[in-house]
Amino acid sequence: MTTPLRLGIAGLGTVGIGVVKIVQAHPELLARRGGRPVEIVAVSASSRTKNRGADISAYAWEDDPVQLARRDDVDLVVELIGGENGVAKALVETALKNGKDVVTANKALLSHHGNALAALAESKGRSLRFEAAVAGGIPVIKALTEGLAGNAIKRVMGVMNGTCNYILTRMESARLPYDVVFEEARKLGYLEADPNLDVGGIDAGHKLSLLSAIAFGTRVDFDSMVLQGIGSVSIDDIQLARDMGFSIKLLGVAQMTGRGLEQRMTPCLVPETHPLGQLQGGTNMVVIEGDSVGQIVLRGAGAGEGPTASAVMGDVMDIARGITIPTFGQPAETLAQAPAAVVSTGAPWYLRMTLLDKPGALAKIATALGDSGISIDRMRQYSHDDAHAPVLIVTHKATSDDIAMALERFEGTGVLVGEPVAMRIEEV
Amino acid sequence: MTTPLRLGIAGLGTVGIGVVKIVQAHPELLARRGGRPVEIVAVSASSRTKNRGADISAYAWEDDPVQLARRDDVDLVVELIGGENGVAKALVETALKNGKDVVTANKALLSHHGNALAALAESKGRSLRFEAAVAGGIPVIKALTEGLAGNAIKRVMGVMNGTCNYILTRMESARLPYDVVFEEARKLGYLEADPNLDVGGIDAGHKLSLLSAIAFGTRVDFDSMVLQGIGSVSIDDIQLARDMGFSIKLLGVAQMTGRGLEQRMTPCLVPETHPLGQLQGGTNMVVIEGDSVGQIVLRGAGAGEGPTASAVMGDVMDIARGITIPTFGQPAETLAQAPAAVVSTGAPWYLRMTLLDKPGALAKIATALGDSGISIDRMRQYSHDDAHAPVLIVTHKATSDDIAMALERFEGTGVLVGEPVAMRIEEV
Repeated sequence: MTTPLRLGIAGLGTVGIGVVKIVQAHPELLARRGGRPVEIVAVSASSRTKNRGADISAYAWEDDPVQLARRDDVDLVVELIGGENGVAKALVETALKNGKDVVTANKALLSHHGNALAALAESKGRSLRFEAAVAGGIPVIKALTEGLAGNAIKRVMGVMNGTCNYILTRMESARLPYDVVFEEARKLGYLEADPNLDVGGIDAGHKLSLLSAIAFGTRVDFDSMVLQGIGSVSIDDIQLARDMGFSIKLLGVAQMTGRGLEQRMTPCLVPETHPLGQLQGGTNMVVIEGDSVGQIVLRGAGAGEGPTASAVMGDVMDIARGITIPTFGQPAETLAQAPAAVVSTGAPWYLRMTLLDKPGALAKIATALGDSGISIDRMRQYSHDDAHAPVLIVTHKATSDDIAMALERFEGTGVLVGEPVAMRIEEV
Repeated sequence: MTTPLRLGIAGLGTVGIGVVKIVQAHPELLARRGGRPVEIVAVSASSRTKNRGADISAYAWEDDPVQLARRDDVDLVVELIGGENGVAKALVETALKNGKDVVTANKALLSHHGNALAALAESKGRSLRFEAAVAGGIPVIKALTEGLAGNAIKRVMGVMNGTCNYILTRMESARLPYDVVFEEARKLGYLEADPNLDVGGIDAGHKLSLLSAIAFGTRVDFDSMVLQGIGSVSIDDIQLARDMGFSIKLLGVAQMTGRGLEQRMTPCLVPETHPLGQLQGGTNMVVIEGDSVGQIVLRGAGAGEGPTASAVMGDVMDIARGITIPTFGQPAETLAQAPAAVVSTGAPWYLRMTLLDKPGALAKIATALGDSGISIDRMRQYSHDDAHAPVLIVTHKATSDDIAMALERFEGTGVLVGEPVAMRIEEV
């Protein structure tokens, strides 16, 4: 094959320009590896004249990105506009309908419309690839879909929002409260325009929903995911967790259980000796557990021009090489509609609360736990100067249901000051 | 495609039986993902009747493994015999010549004959894949060849011999000398029949030579690699390194320099805060640095039935899916014959030696370093009871040539007791 692979790129933000730079920097390398030249023929973005640090004057320009999908000289549309609906969706649909391959970094689009778009791609015999949508430069989609294709996947876990991990590790290292570090992150430009996408766990949840589909052969089901952000994690929790040998991470976990597909993106405690617990700053990590391979850990930059463009180019090179596999690793129509597991599998939990300092308070809490079927592994009451006693409890294995029941019973004791904190301790 | 992919498996040791078990355990999963059933039709091994923990009675038997390559009902030969010559080589060659795809775990074969075998596969339009040859279950060949195909690779590093890492980390945790832990490892069955393949760095060197070829588009060149085993690493070195914040690893490093391709498999110091420094026991780790992606770290089991069989099956599933790319990521005839860099790039070095305790001894050593163009970052002389003074030096950046020169000068000082130890500190 010496026919070039001709790209139309929609969106020239950080990632789009990163892709342009790679194509411009390595024409021979890409041609040698891809078996054919990789060329950009047309681009579309919000402004044609904005200075982006790369020369785009040689490429045809489209004011309307969807026009890229209608050009006869475009083989592959690279969608880097973002957003779950609107023009990104129209572009991807039009491209596939017109027989073009599509590479996208759009986790929101795929987490909401991935099933339909995958089916459309397959009905047209085209590729719809999304390595860049999950964990930036880490080639995790490829590892899971292809490299580990011989495994029944048991669990997928990940720290996949660098901003959240930056905030949590910075809170610990600088001993600063959440609100202060959140403001720092905002000023550094680490937060999305809607910060809840980051700190609310939505962005990371989108990513996890795509990994789930591949891992378990199930339809993408973002709506059933248990989502909890990091806004309620306090510096006290981080320090108490550390004292017991744990780190707090916004951890995504997906696994198939007897009660259905469990998908959670919540703050969890993980052992500080595990690579997940050692992950600092904005780096991402995905952990895949297969029945044959055991545990595989993948670590790398989760965002940024170079890493995300690298992931886009991984997909582009696959298409140059003629590699076509279904979007989620098996035909879209074979993806199962698995029920969502509403109750999580059992695990130890970290519970922190403040009690009125009066006789019998602790006993009431212990009784509420016992009545909920939860046994206590460790309990500590800390010394205190006022009438409020800080209490830390680590439970033996309990489900999310058990914990919810216990929290309800705590309310009824009348000894609680403020809201208790409950976080799962993920066993890794 | 509903035509089954029909396997002939040569070698039913740990890995071969692992492959049999996966194919038997997951027929539907494999068919759904591969787009066609994956079947075993014939096998060959040293004994037909040995109890292997898997039922092979349904498969045709060949006493001569090369016969698998001549069967009309075999599409893909899985070579798990091992060895750089002999029957493994004959089998792979015959299979490719007969138009069959080949999947192998044989690093020795490919590190010595990979260039010719890749060319043969490509001339026949067949696949020759070897994920299982490098770092066990970690899908590193796929990550490097495909996922990171948009990157100019800057450096590849790895801890790829689990036995060596087990020995080094066990020496530290149990404070036992090398010889004792070596014997332990032998009794545990961790060592190859020729232990020098492990502790001499040869096995890990084979793996590195294959990663180099993909990373830098160069012909496989195992013979030019700088190889040094772990036999000379003492518990003192491990402890002194730890005191300075480093771990000692048998570390493979490959990078393209202005003076040619640098390939080393030697004991090195790495920061204990880096994932490489934190790697305990028999686990493997590969670190890939690309110009766009930055640093990617991959971690997993480097050996064993399940992990290695998982890697074999990754390749098998690629072939089921119709994925065909050149063995080393670009056509074999385009692989460059790069000169070997005989002198390593500059790095800090760790030097430990024992000096006669007499006036001017340390000055002579310092002078020898200065005369070799090496400046000193840190130097410590330890208190001692006898006439022998232990001395530790950390240098600023120096090449392997500079260090060799200094070691020669040390000899001439007449103050050295025994052999000095010199290890590179790899900057990660």
